[in-house]
This record gives sequence, C-alpha cells and structure tokens, in this order.
Amino acid sequence: MSEIVIRPPYLIFVGTETRPTYVKTGLGLVDWRPELCKGQLRLSDDAVDLGLPDLGLGEALGSGVNSLVIGTAAVGGGIPEEWVETLVMAAELGIDIVAGLHSSLDEVKDLRAAADRSGANLINVRKPPENLPVGTGKKRTGKRVLMVGTDCAVGKKYTALQLEKDMKKQGMNADFRASGQTGILIAGRGIPIDSVVSDFVAGAAEMLSPDNSADHWDVIEGQGGLFHPGYAPVTVGLLMGSQPDAFVVCHEAGRNIIEGWDEYQTPSIAEVIERTKVIGGLTNPDIECVGVSVNTSPLKPENRTTYLSELSAKLGLPCVDPLHTGAGPIVGKLQAISDADQKALRQVS
Amino acid sequence: MSEIVIRPPYLIFVGTETRPTYVKTGLGLVDWRPELCKGQLRLSDDAVDLGLPDLGLGEALGSGVNSLVIGTAAVGGGIPEEWVETLVMAAELGIDIVAGLHSSLDEVKDLRAAADRSGANLINVRKPPENLPVGTGKKRTGKRVLMVGTDCAVGKKYTALQLEKDMKKQGMNADFRASGQTGILIAGRGIPIDSVVSDFVAGAAEMLSPDNSADHWDVIEGQGGLFHPGYAPVTVGLLMGSQPDAFVVCHEAGRNIIEGWDEYQTPSIAEVIERTKVIGGLTNPDIECVGVSVNTSPLKPENRTTYLSELSAKLGLPCVDPLHTGAGPIVGKLQAISDADQKALRQVS
Repeated sequence: MSEIVIRPPYLIFVGTETRPTYVKTGLGLVDWRPELCKGQLRLSDDAVDLGLPDLGLGEALGSGVNSLVIGTAAVGGGIPEEWVETLVMAAELGIDIVAGLHSSLDEVKDLRAAADRSGANLINVRKPPENLPVGTGKKRTGKRVLMVGTDCAVGKKYTALQLEKDMKKQGMNADFRASGQTGILIAGRGIPIDSVVSDFVAGAAEMLSPDNSADHWDVIEGQGGLFHPGYAPVTVGLLMGSQPDAFVVCHEAGRNIIEGWDEYQTPSIAEVIERTKVIGGLTNPDIECVGVSVNTSPLKPENRTTYLSELSAKLGLPCVDPLHTGAGPIVGKLQAISDADQKALRQVS
Repeated sequence: MSEIVIRPPYLIFVGTETRPTYVKTGLGLVDWRPELCKGQLRLSDDAVDLGLPDLGLGEALGSGVNSLVIGTAAVGGGIPEEWVETLVMAAELGIDIVAGLHSSLDEVKDLRAAADRSGANLINVRKPPENLPVGTGKKRTGKRVLMVGTDCAVGKKYTALQLEKDMKKQGMNADFRASGQTGILIAGRGIPIDSVVSDFVAGAAEMLSPDNSADHWDVIEGQGGLFHPGYAPVTVGLLMGSQPDAFVVCHEAGRNIIEGWDEYQTPSIAEVIERTKVIGGLTNPDIECVGVSVNTSPLKPENRTTYLSELSAKLGLPCVDPLHTGAGPIVGKLQAISDADQKALRQVS
C-alpha cells in the first residue's frame, strides 16, 4: 500500500465535544465530502451538531458505514476515557476506526484487541505507509497542479479543494490529492508527507500522484513553504516529487512574518513564484504559475476586490479568494494547458 | 540526547570478513581516528588485518574498551549467525555494541537480553535520536563550514575529515560533524540526517552543530545534492539548519550523470555554488563558497594539476583534491574568515 486509504462511507464521531472550533475536521468532511458522510455519533445532547443524521453503531452498520472517523481535535491529542467504550464497540463490529490524533489508537489496549478479533483497521492518518521508495524523478503521465505557499496555514488545502470542485463543475477530470492529515480524512486517502523520512519525501510525493490519463489533473495539497526555516525540506520534496505542470501560490493578505518564526519575513509572492520554478524545474521544466489564491479575510470586505485586481495587474496572473470568488480564473488557465496539450497531440497524430 | 554518542575507546570487530572492500568502515576508523582504536577482533586468521593489536574480549575490557564497533558491511545488512556468540559475550561484559547495519541489533534476541543484564547499549547509527525539534532558524554562535556536492558519493565525508585534520594542524579549533552512518562511526557521534522525518531535518541539523565559541568551526559532512531528484530534501534541510558561513563544493572529475538517475545530468559546480548561496542565504545571508574539492581519481595522474588549476582560474576559488594535495588553500580561506571576525570584534570593543 503506497498511500493511506479510508473505506467510505463514514460515521463522524463527535464524542462530547461542544466547541465547534474543536470539530473542524468533522465540519470539513461535511463541507467537502457530504456524499461520504452517512451520519454522526454524539455522546451527549449538547455535542456539536454537524447537521448529519444521528446514528447509533447498529444503525450505522445497517446503513453500510465502513469507517468511524474521529472528527474532533481533542486537547492533548489523546483519546478521552469516555470515548473508549464506544470506539471499542465499533471496532468489535468490524468498523474501521480512523483518527488524526497525536497518540496512537494502538495504544488503547481494548481497542487493539477488539480490532484484532473483528479484522477492523485502526488507521492513524499521521502515520505514513511503510516501504515508500526514494524519488526516481521519472516523468509520469497526466497533469498535476500543486499548491505552494508564502507560509504555512495560508489556505493551501482549502484552495486545492475549491479548485477540484470548480474543475469538476467545468467537466474536467480532477482529483484532490491530500498530503496532510486533515486533507487525508477529507479525501479518504493520501500520504502525510511531513511525517515521511527525508530520504523518501520525494518518492512519497511521486506515489501520491501516480501515472494517470492524459486529461487527468491531480490537484495536490501543499505543505510548508520554500522559504520556511523549519519546513522547507518537506516543501522541496513535495515539489520535486509532484513534478507539477502548474502551481498556485497561496497567501494570506497582510501576513508579513512567518507564523511562529518571528525573525523571518514571509517572501513576496513574486519570490515564491521564481523559487518554485527554479526548484520545480529540475523534475518538470514546463512548470508554470497559473494563479494566486489569497485569504483576504484580514482585509476590510470593501477592499477585497481592489486588492485582488491590483495584485493580478502586478503579477499578470489570475488572483482569487476561493472562499468568495471561487477558483474560476485559475481553472481557465488549467483548461488552457489541457487544450494546448490536446492540440499538440492531434498535430502529432 | 540530541545526537548519537559512541563511548571510546573501540574494539573494531572484523568477524570472518576477508574482503578489504567490505571492511571500509573499520579501515576508515583506523585511518581517521587511530587514537580511539585499541584493537581488532577477528574470528578467523584470514580475516582482514586492520593493523591493530588482536584483542580478545577479556583483553579489550582490561585495556578500557567501551565499545565494540562492527567494522564490516555484511551482505544483506544483517548479522551473520557466527558473530552472535561473540557479540553476546561482549554485551554480557558491558561493552556497547555499535553497528551501521540495516537490520537492528535489538532483533538479535540473545543480544538484547545480554545488554539488558549488563546495562550495555546497542547502538544503531542509522537510527536518529528521538524528539528532534523543528528547525528554529535562530542564529547560533561559532562558525560552520558545510560540504555540498554535485551528486552523492563524490567525497563529501572524506573532504570534511581532511579539512578538519588540516585545520587542526594549523592550530584551528575545529570539529568534524557527522551526518551519515559511516561518519558517525568515525566521529563517535552525530545524526544520520537522511533517516530523520522531513519535518525535523532542519532541526536535526541545528542540533548537530550547536552554539560554540566564536573561534570554533564545525566541519559538517554533507548529504545528497541540491540537484538530486531523490535526496534534495535532505540536502536542503541540512543546508538550512547548518546555517553555514562557508561551504565547499565536492565533485568527482568526469561525472556527468547523477549516479543511478540516468535521466539527470549533474549540475555544474557554478550552478551548485549559486543554488547553495540562494537556499543557504535564507538562514545565513553571509554564506560564501570557500573552495572546491575534486576526486580526481578518474583522471590520468599527469592531468590532475592542470585540471585543478584550470578549474581554480575559472571559478576564482581554491580547488583541491584532498587525497593528493590536502585541503590547505581552503583552510586558508576559513582562517581568513576567522581573522576578519576577530578584527571586527576588536574594533567593536
């Protein structure tokens, strides 16, 4: 298995969590993959309501649920004692238990035993698959667009998901490829690239977007940033292994400092474009920037349009805030790449 | 513990190995750290002779040996059955067992038990320390020079060791810092950078060359190459975390293709210099190239001097083959950096 795979459909576990900000994973799943979510399991009446049918374990099983996905980020990253009985029962019924917690599901003794008896899988989306290869640098078929950022947490995952949605709406053949834990829970598959041993990061990225049909686009979630003093190696591996034909620079309006690294300024968008082309050019000389995705929420709403149009004029590229404008102009650029490809192919044949 | 530490002095274990090319680690130890090698342990008379006194385990213990270092690269990377008895006896006597094999010493059941009884350590130099931090990018005191390469296996470790030796000969305060398994066995300490999870590579490199006195140089073994389709992420992390003031480009004369990656040409030395400055400049804007180290063994001996002097004229940098010429001219450049620093310091005070 070269990537993590989660078996749909899902029962989203909310436990006793009453704070919506701690149920972001569950809310993200409902937002982006409603068709995979059969129901929610809440252990108390005041737990956050995701707007899904409340299902007991028996009902969930009856409606075909294959995986219980823990939709909360528990404080401390562990599994609260009051969850254990329910999780053990689910595992006993053969339902896979899926989590992105810091602690391992395996460490809950009764859970491991129940899963062993029923054959259910305990899946930690922070743990990369084993036996990942070293990157080969060999060209693969199909097209790829990668999100890169001026920093971490600037909307790379959100942009990729919106891009996938808008591409599909236009009839394009596209798949979101998750490189981080929340993305993997949403996509139901992927590789947590930042947890991969450095020798194998580029190889893992190659596995994440394998050979595909000529008209197919992998829309790859980005990680870290090329100018990040801590995480740049992850970003370089993902970039080199993805061999993207196209990339989108993600940015948060007004952010000047690398978050948590106060001595480091964020690079300009133009610097990110240049550096991404230089490093990505090694494994794909045709790499090009197809647009910029800005989280404009720090701006006054009335300034959003001016900000985006001025940025667009300066860079000569589509600049969008996917939350407000969708990713349409960027989709247009990707479609143009596909069209040019088709045309070239027809001329050859 | 933020790095692996091996307790000297050593008993070098040769086993029954008769082929010198398979005893490179043992030979490297004798070459570079003769003062740490008390003796050798050979299980047959025709095993390779490292030129050290043959010591039995009792004699070794009597002469203060703290670690038995496996000096051979066994086929398959495992531990041959005929070694086990001796290794178990050594562990039983409280001697640490140190190996750079692919298989784990822990997996040899009797060995684990013996070590547990005596308190001896089983050290695998391929296994990085736990709890490595994310890179902070914070400036550290002391000076650092990093080896970078046009490819893997172009003499980065050898160059660093020769540089350390020549710097010490000139009375400079210098320490070789090992980033790979063989280097760690030679240095008796270090971190196998390529085995570190990608999120922590830059942080591991920071741990490898911590704060030091103003006149001190860390001479850091390089890994991979910035233009390597598989290993570049390792190289980027080591470069960013090392924050080198100076770097040496290592190259093998005549190598045009990345070894094992036939579709990829090696970069020119000038390209490596430029890219290293660009990426390393993020965490140390003063980074500079102090010379080039070439393995000239593929050339005819009579062409060596011309090759090096032409390269030197072209690049405006000292170019040496450390095996033949030593690293003298590069040491001179490093001394000049230290002198300029001292002068600046005096002017301030």
